[in-house]
Amino acid sequence: MIEDVVRKGRLLDIYGPLLTERQRRCMEMYFNLDLSLSEIGEELHISRQGAYDMLNRASRSLEGYESRLGLLARTDAIREKIDTAVSLLESGTESAQEQAEHILKDIEL
Amino acid sequence: MIEDVVRKGRLLDIYGPLLTERQRRCMEMYFNLDLSLSEIGEELHISRQGAYDMLNRASRSLEGYESRLGLLARTDAIREKIDTAVSLLESGTESAQEQAEHILKDIEL
Repeated sequence: MIEDVVRKGRLLDIYGPLLTERQRRCMEMYFNLDLSLSEIGEELHISRQGAYDMLNRASRSLEGYESRLGLLARTDAIREKIDTAVSLLESGTESAQEQAEHILKDIEL
Repeated sequence: MIEDVVRKGRLLDIYGPLLTERQRRCMEMYFNLDLSLSEIGEELHISRQGAYDMLNRASRSLEGYESRLGLLARTDAIREKIDTAVSLLESGTESAQEQAEHILKDIEL
């Protein structure tokens, strides 16, 4: 769980509103505010172990939403296409511009 | 509920995996296959009224996800920016290309 900070933070951005209020706060304190498990436990009036369990459950819940909706993966795919199109446009040639147009028209949202 | 066929179909595409299997089938039969409530009831072994209630519940559920995650609205906003960028590129002038690049770089995913 702990090593995957960037991914979890991004999943939290996307699916956070589907968590319970306490789960979301717990995740935010851990992944965005970098609080320790003991500090989170204090904030939520639960034990350190309780905070750990809540993080794990919330984390599994976020991964569950991603496995069903796949929005993080889709976002990355779209981002990559837009970045490629921008690079092509910056190269300035006419054929590159045509390629960029093609890529942009091809993006499925 | 009934008038909003296109919107519901799109919400179903995005959030369908979060519905129960029966709710999803019910919505698909109604919005994508254009079956009547009686036909849906027969398929699911419930009454016509039961099919209507299931559609309404599933429909509210989809709108609830949209109000929390807003993916349909976000998708439309991104689509609009990409379309604008493509139109600018097609116009072929250099300043239009610069505008297009700017719009694309500005897209938040």
